[in-house]
Amino acid sequence: MKNLIFVKLGGSLITDKSKPYTARLDVIKRLCKEIHEAREEKNFALLVGHGGGGFPHISAEKYQTHKGVINERSWEGFAKVQDDAAKLNRIIVSALIEAGENAVSIQPSASCIAKNGRIIEWYTRPIEIMLSEGIIPVPYGDVCLDKKKGCCIISTEEIFRFLAKKLKPERIIMAGKVDGVLDQKGNVVKKITKRNFKIIKKSLFSSDGLADVTGGMLHKVEKSLETGVKIEIINGLKPNLLKMALIGKRNLGTIIN
Amino acid sequence: MKNLIFVKLGGSLITDKSKPYTARLDVIKRLCKEIHEAREEKNFALLVGHGGGGFPHISAEKYQTHKGVINERSWEGFAKVQDDAAKLNRIIVSALIEAGENAVSIQPSASCIAKNGRIIEWYTRPIEIMLSEGIIPVPYGDVCLDKKKGCCIISTEEIFRFLAKKLKPERIIMAGKVDGVLDQKGNVVKKITKRNFKIIKKSLFSSDGLADVTGGMLHKVEKSLETGVKIEIINGLKPNLLKMALIGKRNLGTIIN
Repeated sequence: MKNLIFVKLGGSLITDKSKPYTARLDVIKRLCKEIHEAREEKNFALLVGHGGGGFPHISAEKYQTHKGVINERSWEGFAKVQDDAAKLNRIIVSALIEAGENAVSIQPSASCIAKNGRIIEWYTRPIEIMLSEGIIPVPYGDVCLDKKKGCCIISTEEIFRFLAKKLKPERIIMAGKVDGVLDQKGNVVKKITKRNFKIIKKSLFSSDGLADVTGGMLHKVEKSLETGVKIEIINGLKPNLLKMALIGKRNLGTIIN
Repeated sequence: MKNLIFVKLGGSLITDKSKPYTARLDVIKRLCKEIHEAREEKNFALLVGHGGGGFPHISAEKYQTHKGVINERSWEGFAKVQDDAAKLNRIIVSALIEAGENAVSIQPSASCIAKNGRIIEWYTRPIEIMLSEGIIPVPYGDVCLDKKKGCCIISTEEIFRFLAKKLKPERIIMAGKVDGVLDQKGNVVKKITKRNFKIIKKSLFSSDGLADVTGGMLHKVEKSLETGVKIEIINGLKPNLLKMALIGKRNLGTIIN
């Protein structure tokens, strides 16, 4: 789709992972305002996905939902993790509406099926129509029914991997709480390609120094390379960076291409 | 599907329609407890749908969302009505989980498409798998993209009409805040069939004396007759009635067959 951008708001960015169920409302509000300002300045279609951070990750850890149906409490975990993920989604969608955007939730667990942790089918017709009408569809890291494991967790990166193939965005912006992909010295890696990834791979940190059930920064970069779309990883904590990235400014973080 | 029951929790039952965004938390909690108790006593698959009541009906009225895309603010209305409907859904799903059930939201606007207000396609695979795993899927009266009108409102009755054809429940229980379908004298009509409906039709009241954007009691009965499934309309405000209906007690309200 021409002029289509995917934006990911990272779970570590929009929640305080050290406290359960704590959304960073000030950050969310500012990011939504930046999105709205960018859309006022420039004409583009937008899909916003977000991670779960301190909302579903605690229950997901507890029930080990990413491993599938492993015991008699796994479906209980499935229900609780989806409830937690959906709670944060309400906060994000409401904030986007509050900022002046027509944003609508897309519940992945109601509209797609995975196999071994990878989405294999998705009823994307509603997303396609919404995008063509200027609405921002807002999917999120969620649980998913899995043909092999019973259930699984699908990260925003996995969602983008699948949707990018189908919807063909021009680029993807991933806003986290670090300046980009960092090497072991803490410096931003300016550009990652399939060619230099093997070397860089060894020295990647996770998005907040801690791996989570969706796999941290390594997972993010691997899924990103798989999309075949140009991806920019930027620091969403720095005011205006998301807006600048949306209107087309370059060199704001790490580019994966 | 064998042993499958659909339950509708009416919008007037679970919210106070006279006050915006006011859920009747005590009623919701009791109904969820009754559902859980019934499931402990008897083995059956269950899908719970619910209306929106005082949550989406105000914005739906304001933007006249049921009429479709009628002006430049219609998509804004679409986004707001879905947000409002989803907010109440979170309360219901969380209450079901709290009561001990593995309940999972099903966002209709992310998984189906309508034409002229009638659902014409729905990606029901997730619902089917959930039911087979003992999970309670929880769809709700929602907005929907519409091939003819741009957008529309789909009531829980319309959702049940479509899903009943596909999933073939043994029966449907509709819990509202009146004792059943009432005639003009306020007496409960014990049984409605296609044969006597023409006569009864003239004397039907809406569920709370006020018609809403989804059409009130007349709409409910018409959609019910269309499902071809036995439907019981009961008073959810009366403790234990929902539980009794679920475990198979008869003559609790109006039967539509």
